[in-house]
Amino acid sequence: MTRDLLLIGIGTGNPDHVTRAGIRAMRAADLILIPRKGADKADLADLRHQICAAALEGADTRIAEFDLPVRDASGEYRAGVDDWHDAIARAWSEAIDRHGAGARTVALLIWGDPSLYDSSLRIAARLPGLNVRVVPGITALQALTAAHAIAINEIGAPFTVTTGRRLRDTGWPPGVDTVAVMLDGACAFQSLDPDGIDIWWGAYLGMAEELLVSGPLADRSAEILSIREEARANHGWIMDIYLLRRRG
Amino acid sequence: MTRDLLLIGIGTGNPDHVTRAGIRAMRAADLILIPRKGADKADLADLRHQICAAALEGADTRIAEFDLPVRDASGEYRAGVDDWHDAIARAWSEAIDRHGAGARTVALLIWGDPSLYDSSLRIAARLPGLNVRVVPGITALQALTAAHAIAINEIGAPFTVTTGRRLRDTGWPPGVDTVAVMLDGACAFQSLDPDGIDIWWGAYLGMAEELLVSGPLADRSAEILSIREEARANHGWIMDIYLLRRRG
Repeated sequence: MTRDLLLIGIGTGNPDHVTRAGIRAMRAADLILIPRKGADKADLADLRHQICAAALEGADTRIAEFDLPVRDASGEYRAGVDDWHDAIARAWSEAIDRHGAGARTVALLIWGDPSLYDSSLRIAARLPGLNVRVVPGITALQALTAAHAIAINEIGAPFTVTTGRRLRDTGWPPGVDTVAVMLDGACAFQSLDPDGIDIWWGAYLGMAEELLVSGPLADRSAEILSIREEARANHGWIMDIYLLRRRG
Repeated sequence: MTRDLLLIGIGTGNPDHVTRAGIRAMRAADLILIPRKGADKADLADLRHQICAAALEGADTRIAEFDLPVRDASGEYRAGVDDWHDAIARAWSEAIDRHGAGARTVALLIWGDPSLYDSSLRIAARLPGLNVRVVPGITALQALTAAHAIAINEIGAPFTVTTGRRLRDTGWPPGVDTVAVMLDGACAFQSLDPDGIDIWWGAYLGMAEELLVSGPLADRSAEILSIREEARANHGWIMDIYLLRRRG
């Protein structure tokens, strides 16, 4: 039996980010696997259960949880990521073996969209014999720009999407005046000369806890650092993203 | 009365790209305005009506069509775009005056997502007294990567999103190995040395007519040109997008 593995983008925390295609795919799946990271509140398992409850009324889809391995952050970054993806692939495979008897279609609910700084497609590629299909979802970048009611790009102009690590290590990307920064646990915007740069920052986008700050980076940098620190302490986790634009 | 203007991203042609938040917003609107470009099949008015029909059952929302002005492409590009946006803002304003009696919330259904190479937010900014809100939608970029089941970015690496015009005029963007190209009516990938570049191309993404081609640019370039020309002749219009990646 060739199994279908559906990677369904669910958006960024608002259960209403789910598309009609996502709901259809969930209802057509035999099994939905929900990852748990132990006591980590950022596993968002509760949100996934909430989305399932809203989508699956009257459907035969089974739901099963499985434990996600923890990333070993001690060694070299790229090798650590590869090992971690191998371990997650084993966890997926074991969960499918344990819970997937007779399941022709298995689904995973992917935070945001499976195409954007998400490892699910690379993990799925480690599992032979699965027919991988993707249902797109709302990304954090779109949740950010929607919340601020701004466009990402200036008219006809390019923009670059990058990571906090990369912004800190290599500075402002060449050839663009607009940069979106993801996966930034350390507020890499502090490494820039803030003069002439505007920022639109958001955390917990789409959720009840949503936080938004925007304005000149020089004026907002300290405010974002302090709001971010307090929110992370309160919630036990934070996910945030920001857009930077150089004023022409 | 301060009116709310809702810009609702509807995805790229598959009515099931609409999110639950989009459906809620449509049902909560008093009036949905649907643009017509005359005989141009690319106005997608039929798709918008189809999405409304599916979403609005039992809702009190009114639907009205209005004529979109045509862009004057004869002069300087940027000035032409500004004039066109002014004219669209007048068309929106007139349509709201004509059809919006008593309407507290007016909605427009935006192809893809209002943040990405879309002029709706800039047009809305020309209309004073409107409280603009955005509901995010699936972008063509996500529809492309979902259809090909690929990630946009390589692990931890940046990417640039740009236009066909820009790629043709300034070449491969600096500092990135991945480039997504939008708004390309003239297959600007032909201007690149194809050696070492892979392409993932898609047209009519999410629609029944969807077309996909991928592989080394050197092998696929002519194929895409010919498929694209034939499809445009058959349908009377085409919308396409592609991702380019340099092999490491």
